[in-house]
Amino acid sequence: MRVYNFSAGPSTLPLNVLEQAQKEFLDFAGTGMSVTEISHRDKAFATVVSEAEALVRELLNVPEDYAVLFVQGGASTQFAAIPLNMMHGGKADYIVTGNFAKKAWQEGEIYGEAVKIGDSSDKTYTYIPDVDKLEYTEGADYVHITSNNTIFGTRYIKFPECNAPLVADMSSEIFSREVDVSRFGVIYAGAQKNLAPAGVTIVIAKRSLIQDPLPICPTMLKWKVQDENGSLYNTPPCFSIYMADLVLRDLKAKGGVKAMNEVGEYKAGLLYEFIDNSKLFKNNVEKQFRSIMNVPFVTPSAELDAKFIAEAKAAGLVSLKGHRLVGGMRASIYNAMPVEGVKALIDFMKKFELENK
Amino acid sequence: MRVYNFSAGPSTLPLNVLEQAQKEFLDFAGTGMSVTEISHRDKAFATVVSEAEALVRELLNVPEDYAVLFVQGGASTQFAAIPLNMMHGGKADYIVTGNFAKKAWQEGEIYGEAVKIGDSSDKTYTYIPDVDKLEYTEGADYVHITSNNTIFGTRYIKFPECNAPLVADMSSEIFSREVDVSRFGVIYAGAQKNLAPAGVTIVIAKRSLIQDPLPICPTMLKWKVQDENGSLYNTPPCFSIYMADLVLRDLKAKGGVKAMNEVGEYKAGLLYEFIDNSKLFKNNVEKQFRSIMNVPFVTPSAELDAKFIAEAKAAGLVSLKGHRLVGGMRASIYNAMPVEGVKALIDFMKKFELENK
Repeated sequence: MRVYNFSAGPSTLPLNVLEQAQKEFLDFAGTGMSVTEISHRDKAFATVVSEAEALVRELLNVPEDYAVLFVQGGASTQFAAIPLNMMHGGKADYIVTGNFAKKAWQEGEIYGEAVKIGDSSDKTYTYIPDVDKLEYTEGADYVHITSNNTIFGTRYIKFPECNAPLVADMSSEIFSREVDVSRFGVIYAGAQKNLAPAGVTIVIAKRSLIQDPLPICPTMLKWKVQDENGSLYNTPPCFSIYMADLVLRDLKAKGGVKAMNEVGEYKAGLLYEFIDNSKLFKNNVEKQFRSIMNVPFVTPSAELDAKFIAEAKAAGLVSLKGHRLVGGMRASIYNAMPVEGVKALIDFMKKFELENK
Repeated sequence: MRVYNFSAGPSTLPLNVLEQAQKEFLDFAGTGMSVTEISHRDKAFATVVSEAEALVRELLNVPEDYAVLFVQGGASTQFAAIPLNMMHGGKADYIVTGNFAKKAWQEGEIYGEAVKIGDSSDKTYTYIPDVDKLEYTEGADYVHITSNNTIFGTRYIKFPECNAPLVADMSSEIFSREVDVSRFGVIYAGAQKNLAPAGVTIVIAKRSLIQDPLPICPTMLKWKVQDENGSLYNTPPCFSIYMADLVLRDLKAKGGVKAMNEVGEYKAGLLYEFIDNSKLFKNNVEKQFRSIMNVPFVTPSAELDAKFIAEAKAAGLVSLKGHRLVGGMRASIYNAMPVEGVKALIDFMKKFELENK
């Protein structure tokens, strides 16, 4: 029986995409080989990479002077790649709104002056600092943000207006809401939440900003090198890119990012409305900053949380355990989570509340 | 129709492994999820990582004081990770026996004095320098070799005996012959040749050598960090690791590395014997250094080479085109290439020779 998988990443993928991948797993595009076996230099596979790139450009309306790259190592590797490609003046601003934002900032400190200009840890990252009131550093090489915070369930509703290029980790929300890419210097995202199986990371970078990586930058982390080689400088993570291509095609067929955003707002709206009216469950995030992708919630006790997670799992609603940093529960309801999955979760929560008054 | 795929990487995988992966693609280990969807923190998946690690240890007889890591970015990323983890004294030796050996050396130059103590480019990398006659640098942090050269079809038959730790890129031959791991400081290998789909790289490193990465080393490239986190510091390339686990189980069931080596020597022996007796085809590698994994060969003309590649493809023998650096043909006959595939290639070559006298 297929379960509803609320994992924060790797996470649920569209069933029709999985079925297609399964069907053609032994014979990709009539080549007589599995897509896991074909050379990345083979024309049949090179087409996948170029199609995936074209779909990212189309779906996010990426300006022509931006590179679209498929790289390896997750967003965590990009935490180093960002300063290594961009920190020419030796300083950059970071807004720390969660665990990964903090890790990005700490990685920045290895390579120069990483200035923490905003920090919402005082309230356990349940809000986003007012970006209009932050003191941006004069001459900073970039300003780094995490646009959606997977663990804490927050998102920016307004992006910083700053002189330095804006760099955004959009791992847990890319393709879930429309953004004006031209306002960003760099957008990057690990694929394993809204796009594909783990193993590939998208980097969208304004070309004029990535021409001069620091001398100590590993060749594989030089965005310029990846761009010049069409993401084929070395053997790429072929299967993850292939799956990303299938998901992107599916996303386009379903109406693109605008349609995803409407469904996403609807799904999250249902869940938050139920939680806000519940006497048992509670979400602690400031309402205006609530993520539509990751919805953390708690009952009044850790024991009841554990009971909920176990019973939900038995009912086919899995991976609802919150991150160890916050405890409680978290429902990650990415693009691929059907409306029915969210409704099934709410029904289960209702039942659980009745049984545990 | 399933073809015989002679690609140098990504490359052919065991059909029974592909069939198993296909069968359980929508429901991994009874979880009701695809293995591409499950959280890497889920017990069902964590088991895969620990089993794969245990199988690597068992199949290669890895000593206990060595870390076995699954990382991302291919061997090319390790070209930087090696100096970043090991170049404490600022100098290391490199033996340049091919394209990737050269790239590893060039990457080493970014971080210190990378001394090229051997180089077989004078004869288009058709041999391995005599390791007993090289001048190893006093106080070098390590000596780097590429044990099997994918593009040029050579392999070391004797490894350097040196004071500094030996670091070996074994991407295109790992699990194809028995090695005494304790003689190496570090062994690393991209998976997409003998192990799994592209996207994961194995690093086997003596723990005492990896405790002090350079301060500028990106966190994700610190082997120590990956070791402390059981290769789960961040989201790993789950599907590639899962496939590696299946291939390793299959390898064990088939008799392990010793059995693979016997079959490998047999397959390569058949092909080299035919080529050496042929009047049309020729292999230019010094016999003693011939790889049993990658067999490059040529006809007397580029036109005939192209004709051969096209007609072979039509006959279901694909990806035989040699690397652009050497031209001609190359048959990569990794562990997963059946004996029948090699025999089919030889039969085709015989027929082609008759038709093109």
